[in-house]
Amino acid sequence: MRSPPETSELDTPSRILMGPGPSMIHPRVLRAMSTQALGYMDPSFLEIMDDIQELLRYAFQTDNEWTLATSGTGTAAMETAIGNIVEPGDTMLVPTNGYFGDRMGKIARRAGGDVVTVDAPWGEPLHPADVADAFDEHQPDVFGFIHAETSTGVRQPNVSDLTDIAHDHDAITIADCVTSLSGVELHVDDWGIDAAYGSPQKCLSCTPGATPLTIGERAREKIQNRDDDTGSWYLDLDLVMEYWGDERNYHHTAPTTNFYGLREALRLVAEEGLENRWERHRAVAGELREGLQNLGLEPAAEKEYWLPSLNSIEVPDGVDDAAVIEFLMDEYDIEIASGLGALEGDIWRIGCMGYSARRQNVACLLTAMEDALEAQNFDVDEPAIEA
Amino acid sequence: MRSPPETSELDTPSRILMGPGPSMIHPRVLRAMSTQALGYMDPSFLEIMDDIQELLRYAFQTDNEWTLATSGTGTAAMETAIGNIVEPGDTMLVPTNGYFGDRMGKIARRAGGDVVTVDAPWGEPLHPADVADAFDEHQPDVFGFIHAETSTGVRQPNVSDLTDIAHDHDAITIADCVTSLSGVELHVDDWGIDAAYGSPQKCLSCTPGATPLTIGERAREKIQNRDDDTGSWYLDLDLVMEYWGDERNYHHTAPTTNFYGLREALRLVAEEGLENRWERHRAVAGELREGLQNLGLEPAAEKEYWLPSLNSIEVPDGVDDAAVIEFLMDEYDIEIASGLGALEGDIWRIGCMGYSARRQNVACLLTAMEDALEAQNFDVDEPAIEA
Repeated sequence: MRSPPETSELDTPSRILMGPGPSMIHPRVLRAMSTQALGYMDPSFLEIMDDIQELLRYAFQTDNEWTLATSGTGTAAMETAIGNIVEPGDTMLVPTNGYFGDRMGKIARRAGGDVVTVDAPWGEPLHPADVADAFDEHQPDVFGFIHAETSTGVRQPNVSDLTDIAHDHDAITIADCVTSLSGVELHVDDWGIDAAYGSPQKCLSCTPGATPLTIGERAREKIQNRDDDTGSWYLDLDLVMEYWGDERNYHHTAPTTNFYGLREALRLVAEEGLENRWERHRAVAGELREGLQNLGLEPAAEKEYWLPSLNSIEVPDGVDDAAVIEFLMDEYDIEIASGLGALEGDIWRIGCMGYSARRQNVACLLTAMEDALEAQNFDVDEPAIEA
Repeated sequence: MRSPPETSELDTPSRILMGPGPSMIHPRVLRAMSTQALGYMDPSFLEIMDDIQELLRYAFQTDNEWTLATSGTGTAAMETAIGNIVEPGDTMLVPTNGYFGDRMGKIARRAGGDVVTVDAPWGEPLHPADVADAFDEHQPDVFGFIHAETSTGVRQPNVSDLTDIAHDHDAITIADCVTSLSGVELHVDDWGIDAAYGSPQKCLSCTPGATPLTIGERAREKIQNRDDDTGSWYLDLDLVMEYWGDERNYHHTAPTTNFYGLREALRLVAEEGLENRWERHRAVAGELREGLQNLGLEPAAEKEYWLPSLNSIEVPDGVDDAAVIEFLMDEYDIEIASGLGALEGDIWRIGCMGYSARRQNVACLLTAMEDALEAQNFDVDEPAIEA
């Protein structure tokens, strides 16, 4: 027999989470998640699932029947959407202006799709004219785009313009709303989005593990008319929906306490009201953006496509981006993140999501950032907090 | 704008969970899961992952480097194992003696494998001679079997005999240990198992959502020498292990609080000691089995392949199996389950796992079952509790 390893009681540092996610979990969500388990066919548990569906329809602003939480983290929801909608031989159009558009392409290839791209620089949104050109050139069956690009802090404006182009070409649209759901204005039905997924651990302030997904009628029809099975049995929506729908057929054991937490997180959204919540993110992140500008830092994203939930900030010349991140963590227990992919070393990414999007966190971060920049001998323009 | 739905505070009934899973979550696990989030690259979080790996190696009794928690429920771990090991055109041998062997086959087909079977009746284990015959006939590349079949309550004895046959034919072995891990004797390395997955929500008494998996060197070599990519990007072990391993490359956001919970659940295993824990399951489930026999009920599984964590009991003639299940739930808040697949209506399945495997639960269940049987006018042989 191998011997048991020695470990100590769970003892975690108290971080202020202002990275690209996870954000801080709301205390009511933590409490809900500490509730004893129920069987996955218990009538009380099925009611919790019904509540999640209704609350998600509100958060996504959709009437879609196929609205659910996938049993995995954000990438599982992305793969569920793409893996079910993209059939072998389909062409999928994805953007090149960030990390997660690229991931969409990777997953589409695994599903047997041919991937074509529409270009925009990292740090800028897609332009409808470019999307129209790409449609004319490639005639894609599926168009995936990122509503809120976590790697660049860019919000895609004018979503309806993009989905109109897709629908004029009979294509299905998939929107990545991982960093926007409940934190940034989003109207799945009104904006013509055929499939969208969010994330529990960003603006919803829940733990990762059960991820919001909604599938509209056009996408559903494509899925149900597939010639062959999806590559994944676990993420096969036709089977998964037999559990979420009226059949209540066992497919796999649902992540029990993640569902408790997600329900509570979504109740908090309903209580606050979506429009108030979007405004809170704008206001608190606005204070952050302005405060950082007062320190002499520059936002990387233009105001018109600024993403309040994820603020990308240019690293000034002569400042060591990693040293600042480390300083904030070591001295103030604050987490922010570096750039990803093409913007590594060029930007910091500062999240302002859900329960993390509070003025106390912004105040603390601004003071800490001033301290960190001074430690780097950066000439801070004005103090963040005026005497 | 669509309006927010009305929901009430989470309010769940207090069930005694003695179905096929989830079992009851240990209070220490609930407490660990109510801990605030950490970033997925936080050094403290990475330490938690290291602890999980070490604790899992103990629970599986393995030295495998590739030992981790997959970011999904049990079926995700099954699909990770099969989807990575089975290459298109490979032949996989699976058993026909239960629901989960069949599921293995379904997933292998999605991975592009040809599926062949070795037969045994539902409710009985595989016989080595039949496995040897199937190997001679089909020369499979991969052999999947179920160590503890949740649908029938059957424990596969003599696992080494099966894996020896597989290795004599240069095949990789995959063992489903969902209902055995930490509750029933299991030695992954000594028994020649090349890949095994467990479940957090059975004998570990954790919540579902992060699922134990271990991959031995032979299986790992096959995975790393694949000609083509796996169908799933989310479950691609080569990529996932870049996060769990020394590279610490971001792949997907880990299910934060599920990892907290799993670590605590595994610490409880280490504290109790595997051999003590196996003995507790045998002793408590033995009391259950004997008590049910005293009521005139018959175990469906022979003693030699009895599975203490999942007790299958024959439904007597004239007794309505569903009515008994409903009575236990309505009158005593106890969950047990009906048979699945071929045994639907023929057996009850009574779990005795982890934190549910306590004498107080058995005592309560026996009294409740006596009451339920009497309500069905079944002639109870002897009272379960003697005056």
